[in-house]
Amino acid sequence: MTEKPVLILDPHPRPVDQNITPEAMTRLTSFFDVKSWTGEPMPSYELEKHLPEATVIIGQTDLPSERLKHAPKLKGILNIEGNFMQNIDYEYCFHNMIHVLNCGNGYAQAVAEMALGFAISLGRRIPEYDRKFRAGTEIYLADACRDSFLLSDSTVGFIGFGSLGRALLPLLAPFHCPIKVYDPWLSPAVIEDQGCVAAPLADVLSTSKYIFILAAVTSENEGFLGRGELEKIQQDSCVMLMSRAAIIDFDAFVDCAASGNFRAATDVFPDEPMGKDHPCRTTDNVLLSPHRAGGIPQAFHKIGDMCVDDAIAIGKNLPPSLMQRAQWESVKQMRSKIAE
Amino acid sequence: MTEKPVLILDPHPRPVDQNITPEAMTRLTSFFDVKSWTGEPMPSYELEKHLPEATVIIGQTDLPSERLKHAPKLKGILNIEGNFMQNIDYEYCFHNMIHVLNCGNGYAQAVAEMALGFAISLGRRIPEYDRKFRAGTEIYLADACRDSFLLSDSTVGFIGFGSLGRALLPLLAPFHCPIKVYDPWLSPAVIEDQGCVAAPLADVLSTSKYIFILAAVTSENEGFLGRGELEKIQQDSCVMLMSRAAIIDFDAFVDCAASGNFRAATDVFPDEPMGKDHPCRTTDNVLLSPHRAGGIPQAFHKIGDMCVDDAIAIGKNLPPSLMQRAQWESVKQMRSKIAE
Amino acid sequence: MTEKPVLILDPHPRPVDQNITPEAMTRLTSFFDVKSWTGEPMPSYELEKHLPEATVIIGQTDLPSERLKHAPKLKGILNIEGNFMQNIDYEYCFHNMIHVLNCGNGYAQAVAEMALGFAISLGRRIPEYDRKFRAGTEIYLADACRDSFLLSDSTVGFIGFGSLGRALLPLLAPFHCPIKVYDPWLSPAVIEDQGCVAAPLADVLSTSKYIFILAAVTSENEGFLGRGELEKIQQDSCVMLMSRAAIIDFDAFVDCAASGNFRAATDVFPDEPMGKDHPCRTTDNVLLSPHRAGGIPQAFHKIGDMCVDDAIAIGKNLPPSLMQRAQWESVKQMRSKIAE
Amino acid sequence: MTEKPVLILDPHPRPVDQNITPEAMTRLTSFFDVKSWTGEPMPSYELEKHLPEATVIIGQTDLPSERLKHAPKLKGILNIEGNFMQNIDYEYCFHNMIHVLNCGNGYAQAVAEMALGFAISLGRRIPEYDRKFRAGTEIYLADACRDSFLLSDSTVGFIGFGSLGRALLPLLAPFHCPIKVYDPWLSPAVIEDQGCVAAPLADVLSTSKYIFILAAVTSENEGFLGRGELEKIQQDSCVMLMSRAAIIDFDAFVDCAASGNFRAATDVFPDEPMGKDHPCRTTDNVLLSPHRAGGIPQAFHKIGDMCVDDAIAIGKNLPPSLMQRAQWESVKQMRSKIAE
Repeated sequence: MTEKPVLILDPHPRPVDQNITPEAMTRLTSFFDVKSWTGEPMPSYELEKHLPEATVIIGQTDLPSERLKHAPKLKGILNIEGNFMQNIDYEYCFHNMIHVLNCGNGYAQAVAEMALGFAISLGRRIPEYDRKFRAGTEIYLADACRDSFLLSDSTVGFIGFGSLGRALLPLLAPFHCPIKVYDPWLSPAVIEDQGCVAAPLADVLSTSKYIFILAAVTSENEGFLGRGELEKIQQDSCVMLMSRAAIIDFDAFVDCAASGNFRAATDVFPDEPMGKDHPCRTTDNVLLSPHRAGGIPQAFHKIGDMCVDDAIAIGKNLPPSLMQRAQWESVKQMRSKIAE
Repeated sequence: MTEKPVLILDPHPRPVDQNITPEAMTRLTSFFDVKSWTGEPMPSYELEKHLPEATVIIGQTDLPSERLKHAPKLKGILNIEGNFMQNIDYEYCFHNMIHVLNCGNGYAQAVAEMALGFAISLGRRIPEYDRKFRAGTEIYLADACRDSFLLSDSTVGFIGFGSLGRALLPLLAPFHCPIKVYDPWLSPAVIEDQGCVAAPLADVLSTSKYIFILAAVTSENEGFLGRGELEKIQQDSCVMLMSRAAIIDFDAFVDCAASGNFRAATDVFPDEPMGKDHPCRTTDNVLLSPHRAGGIPQAFHKIGDMCVDDAIAIGKNLPPSLMQRAQWESVKQMRSKIAE
Repeated sequence: MTEKPVLILDPHPRPVDQNITPEAMTRLTSFFDVKSWTGEPMPSYELEKHLPEATVIIGQTDLPSERLKHAPKLKGILNIEGNFMQNIDYEYCFHNMIHVLNCGNGYAQAVAEMALGFAISLGRRIPEYDRKFRAGTEIYLADACRDSFLLSDSTVGFIGFGSLGRALLPLLAPFHCPIKVYDPWLSPAVIEDQGCVAAPLADVLSTSKYIFILAAVTSENEGFLGRGELEKIQQDSCVMLMSRAAIIDFDAFVDCAASGNFRAATDVFPDEPMGKDHPCRTTDNVLLSPHRAGGIPQAFHKIGDMCVDDAIAIGKNLPPSLMQRAQWESVKQMRSKIAE
Repeated sequence: MTEKPVLILDPHPRPVDQNITPEAMTRLTSFFDVKSWTGEPMPSYELEKHLPEATVIIGQTDLPSERLKHAPKLKGILNIEGNFMQNIDYEYCFHNMIHVLNCGNGYAQAVAEMALGFAISLGRRIPEYDRKFRAGTEIYLADACRDSFLLSDSTVGFIGFGSLGRALLPLLAPFHCPIKVYDPWLSPAVIEDQGCVAAPLADVLSTSKYIFILAAVTSENEGFLGRGELEKIQQDSCVMLMSRAAIIDFDAFVDCAASGNFRAATDVFPDEPMGKDHPCRTTDNVLLSPHRAGGIPQAFHKIGDMCVDDAIAIGKNLPPSLMQRAQWESVKQMRSKIAE
C-alpha cells in the first residue's frame, strides 16, 4: 500500500473552516496525509517534524531558505491569501521548481460584481436618493434624474488589468462600452486580445466616464495616482477604487470628489477603521464601503476549493491551474526593493 | 414640386425639447410639414384645421372617432409616453389601419440598468453600509460580509417579460443565472427561445434568490401580488419592484421586507410623493428610489428619436419598427373593462 | 360544459406530420375542435361547413372575401409556409382584426447556421481542398493556405435584415466583425440598436469581406443585384446567397465568381433543378447547395410548434407571439402591384 | 548611452518574413541588437560569438546545457513553433529562470474557426451535396435534408482543453450547446469555471453529437483513441480531428466513419502526404483537409507579433504574457520518457 503524500495545513490567521468546507476537507484528506495546526501559526518544532516529508504547504508559514532546505520533497506553497508575502525565499523556490501560489483571483468575481454595483450606483446616484428618501427630502421623476446617465455605451477606463480586470470585463460586455486599459506590466497585445485598447494613464484618466482602479500595489506603484493625475479626470466621471488605497493619494481623492470634480466610490482605505472625522464620511459624492468587496462567504469557499484542487494537482505531478503563480519578475523587483 | 405630408406635434404635457433634440427636429421638419403647439394641448379649432391633411400625430391628443373621421389620411398616432391612454378610439384605428404606438420600450435600457444596480445593491447591502459609514458605525472585511452573496449563478425570477425583461436579460447574461419567467400573456416558447424557463407565479416567487417585478399594470393584474404571494418568497431573497406599484399590495411588500422576510428595492410607489411617515422610510431592508429608473435625459432623447424615425417610416409607407404597437387583444380587454 | 373553439387544419401541400409532431397535435386537439383534411386541399363543401364556426385556420387555404364573410368568428389564419401567399384578401383581414401569420422565421436558425458554414467554407476553401484530396492532388500546410483568411475581425455586410439576419447576428458575435447592413425597409436606428451600421447598398458591397444576401424577394426588389452591383464587390470577398435567387442576376453572379472576382456560395437557384450544363456546376469558386439551408426536420417541427402555440394564444384572446405577422404596408404594396 | 540588449534570431526552418512583418521587425530592432541568420540554422561559431551577451533567443536552436552555460544573461528562449522541441535542456532553464516559450496558441483562432466550419459542414453535409451538384445528381429541399441537423442545442464534447479548446469555446457560445470536456491534465474546476462539465473520456464519446478532438500529443497519450474508444461514439455523431493524428488509431477512425458509425472530418494525417490509395480518400463520410487549419498567413503574423512582444517584455524584466510557457511537470514527463 502506498503512503499518502504529506500536506502541511497552517492557515493562521485564517480559521480553517472559513475557507475549507467539510466537502473540500474530505477531498484533501483522502489524497493527503494532512498535518494541520489551528488557532495559531504552526510552531517550529511541529513544522520541523513535518518538513522533511512535506509535498505541499497550505498557509502563510515563514519559509526562509534555512527551513526550505529541510523540505526536499516540497513542490508547492499555497498561500490562502490574496497577496504574496515577503516571508518566503522565492529565489530558492524558483531554483527548486517549487510552485508558490496565492488565491487573489478567488476574490475577483466578488470584487467585480461590487465594482459594477458601485458604477451603476454612482451614475444613477442610488444611495444618495435613498438617503434623501429616508430624510423625507426626495424629489421624483425627471427632476430627480437630470444628472443621471447610463453605463451603456459609455467610455470606460481600467487602471490595472490583472484578475480583477479580467473578472469585470465580461460583466461589462452587454453594456457595449469602449474600454481603455492602463497596465504597464502587460504587452498591449494582451489587452487588445481582450477587445480593449491599451492606453497611457493620462489618456485613461482624461477620457473615461467610468474609471475602475484595479491595480495591485507593488513596491513601484505606491501612490502613483496623485493629485495631479486625479485632476485629469473628466467632470462628473465615476471613479471606483477597488484594489488598494496605497496606490492613490487618498486625501486628494476624497477632496476632488467632495469638490464635485468627479463621483467616487471606495472599498479600501488608508486606515481601517478610518478616523471618525475624516471628510470622506460627510460628502454626498463619495460612496463608502468598508472593505466589503471581496471577503464574502462564497469567495472564501471558492478559495478553499482552489487550494484543495491545486494541492491535489501538484500531488499528482500536474501543473496547478487555478491559483495565481508567483512570477520571477515580480519577486526580483520585490527583492531588490527590500535590499535597498 | 411635391408637398410635404402633414404631421401634428402636440406633445403636452411634455415640453417638446425634453424628447426631441434639435437634430431630431431638423429631420422631422425636413420630411414633414409640422404643425406644432406647445405649453398646452392643441386646441380644437387648431386641431380641426390640420386633421383633414394629417398623416401622423405625435402626442397624447384626445382622438375619439368623431375626430378621427375627419382625418382620412391619418396613418399613425405616436404617443410620446410609456402607456396607451384611453382617450383614443382604438377600434376605429384598427379598422382603418392607423398605427397606434407608444414609447414604453424607450425607457427599458435605463430601467434595466437600474434594476441590475438595485440587485447588486441588495445582495451586497451597498447603501446600508454606506449609511453605517456616514454614521461612524461601520465594521470591516469578513465580519461585514456575512450576509453578502453574489448575483453570479443565483436563481433569478422575472415577473413580466415585456420590454423591461428583454432589456434586462442581456445584462444578466454574464452572471450565468438560471432564469424563470412568469408571463401569462406569452407562449412558453417565446420565453424558452430566450434561454429562460416559463414557470407559474408561485414557482417563480418561491425558488428565486433575485426577483425582478417588471409587469406592466393592466385592468386584470391590479394587485395580483398580494400578501399571500409575497409570503412565498424565500427568506433573504432580493426583490426589485421596477414597473408599477399598482400590481402589488405595497404595504404588505414593505411590511414583509421590514420583518426580514426578504430584501426589497422599489422605484415606484402608490402615492408620489409618499406620505412622510410611511414605514418604508425607516427600514434598512428597503432601498428607496423616487421613480428615477426610467426618466433620465438619455431615455427621453432616445424616445424622441424613435418617434421621429417611426413617423418618417410611416410617412414613407413603411411599417414602424421602433415603438411599441397597440395590440388588438389588449385594446379589447381595456374596452370591455371600461364598458363594465 | 363549454365547447372547444373550431380550428381548420388544411396544410396541403405539406403532409400534416412533417410539421406537427404527435405531442403538438395532442396540445392542439386538447384546446381546439380540429377539422382536418389531408392529402389534398380541403374541398369547398367541407370548408363551407366549418367556416361559420372557425376561430383559426392553419394552412394555405384560398380565402377571398367571399369566403371570409362566412367566417364571422375567425381571428387567425396561420400559413404553415415561409411566405405570404396572394390567395387571401388581406385588406378584409386587417379591417376585421384577423391575424395573418407565416412561419418564415421558423427556418431562420437553420439558414443562419448554414450561412456561417458557407462563410467559413469559402474563406478557408474547405470543399475545394476536400475535392483535391479525393482527386489525389492535394498539397499540405502553409502552401495550401496562402489564400485562406479568418472570419474573425473581418468586415461583414448583410443585404436584408429580417428574421435571417437576426438569427445570423448572434452567431457572428464571437468573431467581432464590424457589420454593415443594407435594408431600406428599416429605420437605421433598428440596425444600430443591434450593434450594426446602416449603410447604402454600394457601400456594403464594396467594403465587406463577407457578404450575406438575406433579403426576401418582394414585388419591388426583384433582380436588384444586377451585374453592375456585383462588380462593386471586392476582389476575393465571400458572397453567400441564402434567401431567394430572384433578387439577383444569377448568371452574372456565377460569371463574376467563375472569373475570380469573388468567392460565392448559393443555396437557391432560378430553376430547381438547375440545367445540367449550367456553368455554376463547373467552377471551383462557387459552393453549391441544392436549397438545403432551411428545410431540415428540426425546422419543420419548430414551425409546427409555433403554429400550435400561436393558434392557442389566439384562441385565448392573447396576441400571437411566435410567427411573423403580415404588415399592412407590404400587403398594400403587393396589392398595388397586382392591380397594375 | 546604454547599449541595446542582444537577441539571437535563428528561425530556421521558417523564413524570417513568414512570421515577422516589417513592422514587427522594426519594433524588434529598435529594442534589441538583433543577431540574425537565415536560410539555415545559425552555425556554432556564430552562435558561440553571441551567446555570452544574448538576453533572448528566437528560434529552434539546439540548446544543451553546454551551450546554455555560455549564456549567463539569457532570460528567454522563444520557439517560433507550436511545440516544445526536445533539443533544449529544460531543467537547466528552469533552474536558471530562463523562460522557454512556444507559439502554439497563435494558431488557435485559425484552428477554432476551421473546427466550427467542419462541424457545420458535417451536420449539414455541405461538401457532399456540393459534390453531388457538380456530378449532376443533386436532389433539392426537404428530401435532401432528412439527415441534416443543427449545431444549436446539440451535445458537444471536447477531448483536450488547451489553447484550441479555449479558442473554440466562445465560437460555440451562441449555439447554447451543453459541453463536456475530457482533459486529465486539468482540475475539473478549471473546466467548470468555463461553463463546461468535466467528464470521463467514455462519457464524452458516448453522449456527444459533436466531438472535437483537440488534445496535443504527449509521450503518454499516443494512440489513446483506439478502435474500442471510437466504437463508443453515437451513431451519426460528427467527429472533428483537429490536433494530431498520433493520438488516434487513424485507420480505425476512417474505417468507423466509412462504415457509417459516425461522420468525420480530419485536418491531420499519420503521413503527409497520405498514400494515394488510402481508403479515407473515397468515403463520403470523411471530410478531408490537408493540414490547413492552422497555418494561414494571419496566424503566422500573429505568431511573429507575439514573439516580438514577449521578447521585448522579457527585455524589460516583465513577464511574457502572450506565448505558452513550458511547464515543469510536462518537461519532467518528457524527460523521464526519454530516459526510459
